[in-house]
Amino acid sequence: MTDLPSTVEIREEGPREGFQIEPGPIPTDRKVALVDALSATGLHHIQVCSFVSPKLVPGWADAEAVVAGFAPRPGVTYTALWFNAAGLNRALAFKDRLKVEGAVTVVASEAFSLKNLNRDRAKNLEAQRANVAAHLAAGVAVPRISVQAAFGCNYSGDVPPAKVVEALADAFAIGAEQGLTLREATLADTMGWATPARIERVLGEVRARWPDLSLILHLHDTRGLGIANAHAGLRLGVSRFDTTVGGLGGCPFAGQPGAPGNIATEELVLLCEEMGIATGIDLEALVEAGRLAEDVVGRTLPSTMLRSGTLARFRQAA
Amino acid sequence: MTDLPSTVEIREEGPREGFQIEPGPIPTDRKVALVDALSATGLHHIQVCSFVSPKLVPGWADAEAVVAGFAPRPGVTYTALWFNAAGLNRALAFKDRLKVEGAVTVVASEAFSLKNLNRDRAKNLEAQRANVAAHLAAGVAVPRISVQAAFGCNYSGDVPPAKVVEALADAFAIGAEQGLTLREATLADTMGWATPARIERVLGEVRARWPDLSLILHLHDTRGLGIANAHAGLRLGVSRFDTTVGGLGGCPFAGQPGAPGNIATEELVLLCEEMGIATGIDLEALVEAGRLAEDVVGRTLPSTMLRSGTLARFRQAA
Repeated sequence: MTDLPSTVEIREEGPREGFQIEPGPIPTDRKVALVDALSATGLHHIQVCSFVSPKLVPGWADAEAVVAGFAPRPGVTYTALWFNAAGLNRALAFKDRLKVEGAVTVVASEAFSLKNLNRDRAKNLEAQRANVAAHLAAGVAVPRISVQAAFGCNYSGDVPPAKVVEALADAFAIGAEQGLTLREATLADTMGWATPARIERVLGEVRARWPDLSLILHLHDTRGLGIANAHAGLRLGVSRFDTTVGGLGGCPFAGQPGAPGNIATEELVLLCEEMGIATGIDLEALVEAGRLAEDVVGRTLPSTMLRSGTLARFRQAA
Repeated sequence: MTDLPSTVEIREEGPREGFQIEPGPIPTDRKVALVDALSATGLHHIQVCSFVSPKLVPGWADAEAVVAGFAPRPGVTYTALWFNAAGLNRALAFKDRLKVEGAVTVVASEAFSLKNLNRDRAKNLEAQRANVAAHLAAGVAVPRISVQAAFGCNYSGDVPPAKVVEALADAFAIGAEQGLTLREATLADTMGWATPARIERVLGEVRARWPDLSLILHLHDTRGLGIANAHAGLRLGVSRFDTTVGGLGGCPFAGQPGAPGNIATEELVLLCEEMGIATGIDLEALVEAGRLAEDVVGRTLPSTMLRSGTLARFRQAA
């Protein structure tokens, strides 16, 4: 009946997602402190910053200082996000600290492409062609596709699964032109439209077309269904998820200020561990990192476990 | 693979759960305003108050005034909660406005029985015997069993499914002594220990023993898994759920002050409607009632949809 994975890879994006949307300013050393706390939790993947225009995303004007400042921990892969050659070059300056890999970013909604990337889907494909070429010229691998707005869009409403397939096909076409093997794809519920049924439908259609494509789910908990959606993904054998500690984040261009952010890392870890799926993460340390994140951003984060504590704590006391 | 129900019965408990735990004092007319707002949303079941000792639960010292004050709407069933003959008598004074039915309340954790009911399980069974007799003497039906701490306990840790079966068997035995037919049972995750896997396990064991027992899930969203747990229940054909608008509530005796409350009505309605399961509820009106609830209690409630708005709103604008 289910195809549960035996282990999951949790890709922590709290620093990158969180600090891009918080009003701030947040001192650089506090951002570094959060990355260091996350490094000590057993997480194996941490996205530490965004190399984007400081005009568009002032919260990441200090990206270089954050990357230079954290203490890399053996066994942890640190990544960053960027969308163009300029961002790539900033990342490459830190290739001793960051795993530098590119992605082909496509959008399943024309309206969101205009809002978030400031160009329509056709223009974005042109930009992605140039972006891939820049990566290859710099000797940087591009193994992944990222599909934004894969489950719905605040500007265009429901996104048919066929649009996700079309966006992926566009990305594969760009890859084929340049001799790339795209092995993995992130399906992002950027604006929180996913439901378990929609996860099943979209994953079903994508897998029917590309059965060997490794899928990553990037979920937001915009309307309370985030963990139910992750569970639907787990049941379908998805073993890689993007999350944020404390539920940090939210998209600055999604048109719903105040909406909750990504699914909380600690809630997904709890779900997995209680289902017998190993994460390798110390949940108690992660909850403490979430509380630190609240202190750093100066507000209460949406994660419920920061209020309630872990089950382990109650089990020990029982 | 699944046994999804075609309709669900959502039993709104926001007023009762919420006002028992809020520090208050909250003016009676504000409580009444929330009940009236909920009545206009399409909800068919609303629990309006608790007839409990004002010493133990000061927030419900005005239970009578609330029940006398709201405007009953045709087609809506209004209920209340009580735990003994004194509470029953207070409810009976309003039998023109309330559906007065009793329940046999049992606890799957000895430790929680002592904390919440101030008596051990054996003493609770004695009390339940007297309670059932009082109901029957007053001509009041007792169709339901309520199992507290059915998925775990902050004081005793994990609760084996066998303990739930044992608690139900105790309740059936009391019923049998007094010639009762107990047709339905509420399984309450009082302290937020449930996971989808645990829901499946407990429901499986209960149904193996009593295949015809109609089950109601009463879930708390203590650690972010509440809606995933409801989804697991839906997949197993559960069609009745207790919820609270805005995620009001939380148990005053659960030992985790500040923890989130019950699953939010609007999040369950969204989940159901997006899966094609009819609820009969106007989600936009419900979200407005949730915002009123925040205004009444004077704090931000955990429900994410109060921040993000409904999908319908974005669909219309698209």
